[in-house]
Amino acid sequence: MLVRYRDIIVTTLKKRLSQDFLPVYDMLRYCMGWSDKDGNPVDGAMGKSLRPSLCLFACEAVGGQIRHALPAAASLELIHNFSLIHDEIEDFDETRHHRPTLWTLWGINKALVAGNVLRIVADRSMEMMKIDEGKDAERVVKGVELLTEACLEMIEGQYMDISFEGRIDITLDQYMAMISRKTGALIRCSLQLGAAMGTENLATLETFRKTGTSLGFVFQIRDDILGIWGEEKSTGKPVGIDILRKKNSLPIVHAMDKADKKGKELLREIYSLEHPGEQEVAAVLEIMEQAGTRDYAQKLAYEYEGKALKLFSQTRLSDSHQLDFGVLARFLAVRQY
Amino acid sequence: MLVRYRDIIVTTLKKRLSQDFLPVYDMLRYCMGWSDKDGNPVDGAMGKSLRPSLCLFACEAVGGQIRHALPAAASLELIHNFSLIHDEIEDFDETRHHRPTLWTLWGINKALVAGNVLRIVADRSMEMMKIDEGKDAERVVKGVELLTEACLEMIEGQYMDISFEGRIDITLDQYMAMISRKTGALIRCSLQLGAAMGTENLATLETFRKTGTSLGFVFQIRDDILGIWGEEKSTGKPVGIDILRKKNSLPIVHAMDKADKKGKELLREIYSLEHPGEQEVAAVLEIMEQAGTRDYAQKLAYEYEGKALKLFSQTRLSDSHQLDFGVLARFLAVRQY
Repeated sequence: MLVRYRDIIVTTLKKRLSQDFLPVYDMLRYCMGWSDKDGNPVDGAMGKSLRPSLCLFACEAVGGQIRHALPAAASLELIHNFSLIHDEIEDFDETRHHRPTLWTLWGINKALVAGNVLRIVADRSMEMMKIDEGKDAERVVKGVELLTEACLEMIEGQYMDISFEGRIDITLDQYMAMISRKTGALIRCSLQLGAAMGTENLATLETFRKTGTSLGFVFQIRDDILGIWGEEKSTGKPVGIDILRKKNSLPIVHAMDKADKKGKELLREIYSLEHPGEQEVAAVLEIMEQAGTRDYAQKLAYEYEGKALKLFSQTRLSDSHQLDFGVLARFLAVRQY
Repeated sequence: MLVRYRDIIVTTLKKRLSQDFLPVYDMLRYCMGWSDKDGNPVDGAMGKSLRPSLCLFACEAVGGQIRHALPAAASLELIHNFSLIHDEIEDFDETRHHRPTLWTLWGINKALVAGNVLRIVADRSMEMMKIDEGKDAERVVKGVELLTEACLEMIEGQYMDISFEGRIDITLDQYMAMISRKTGALIRCSLQLGAAMGTENLATLETFRKTGTSLGFVFQIRDDILGIWGEEKSTGKPVGIDILRKKNSLPIVHAMDKADKKGKELLREIYSLEHPGEQEVAAVLEIMEQAGTRDYAQKLAYEYEGKALKLFSQTRLSDSHQLDFGVLARFLAVRQY
């Protein structure tokens, strides 16, 4: 699925960012992975395009024409990148996909503003539904509303994530509520918005929505696993990056809950340090080993994969769409990057 | 004008920010000047509400009903505050209206995210035109498009402003192009969007648009004067704040152009320092005194005030609306805060 729609997504996105008025658009093309920092075209630095692919897939799956969902698909990818740019500033992340992040090359101020520009280019992309695809204004407003709500949830989730940093008392429920917003909102919206461009059947839309919620959990839980045990050559980030950043990711929440008394005390100590280092990462990994954290997290990812498949089967779409979706869900549950 | 619409604007804005789901909304109510940092209600910390007032005025002036322009008016004020929150982070501004800025109280990360939340609350406000005011979808899409374009121009202007910092070769044309976006876009949009909620006459809308451009120049040029010579007790910012921040405001652009050889060299030196101090502010003030910078800038503000009035008179609106507009334009040209 991620390969199938790639060309059409990239073509649409490039159109959205073809303005040359200001150097900020060079920054954005770099951010999207199409050019190096001097503006020369490069290949192969793009992300997975998960959200726009889900959007186009959903539209096609319900019998819609993918060109009707293209403006929304482009919007979703642009908003995702807007959130990455600001996230990287907040987390002081120095690399993404093995390349320096925007703020490390252009400074925090320009990167912050570039993120805001991208957010607006996304809005414009949605508005183009009207002109480019002849959608009536009602449909445009409906689409814009769905995306606005998803964006708000995403940013509220980001706020929760920041609020959790350094804390040691986050429950599983709080964690799930946070990722359901921070990551789930946009993945959920990708499926729902794509389907909404192809059908008006409310039950179908609701099923896509629920499926998206479960799929979002699969994605983020696997992301959290990679944030602790992912290999640098695949993820482009050091092992234990989420420990270094004192994130409350699922493995941490689990270890805080399940570790023995000594382990809990050590975790508390490490999370009260200003800058945990490699030694602390090793200690936390040891605690997680004892608590069976990795198995627990991976099982939870599989559990939500199962839920997503079961929900999606309620759409009664063709076998080939069911199969496509199954392959994607499994990929998200086991990916290495 | 700024007093007339105040109550209805505040009531509408408060409705938009009445959610209590997350502490981020406490931050936003603080930012809007309605509560202290602990969430207790306070009075008298709000800004001028210039943009929403212009929007409601324009709607009423062309014969529309102000309730039709209220969602747009609220959006404009929310977007203005979103841009202030991010600007304050970029400029390390520690106070606004004599109160600590958001990032100084809650940290940069939470402030950045709070700004993004406000931006989305603004989008939602526009979308409410449909439900609250029974506007048809076409009108909503049109309004959303106008606001999106203004937002993009504003942020592009912010990017230009950042790019200019520390430079000593900015021409008057470059400066005018920058402020026409950074400040002008939203003021222009306030008049145009307000009028668009009351009339579909294209010539009238174009006149409001042009009037807004001139009014934006009046506002920003006076702002630049206050950024050099404004008194701390009125502006809440130290004298010469724009020199300390190495901004390319109008007085600086003028002095760089008109100072004698020795003055230019000194300016170049000061703008290459990492942190100019009080001594440097005094030196720059002296150069500006010699170059007649203050008179020049104030005359330019009056010139654009005249242009704005002349343009507005083309609307052939009632004498009382002409008078109202004239009073506002004069206030913007001579205000102390």
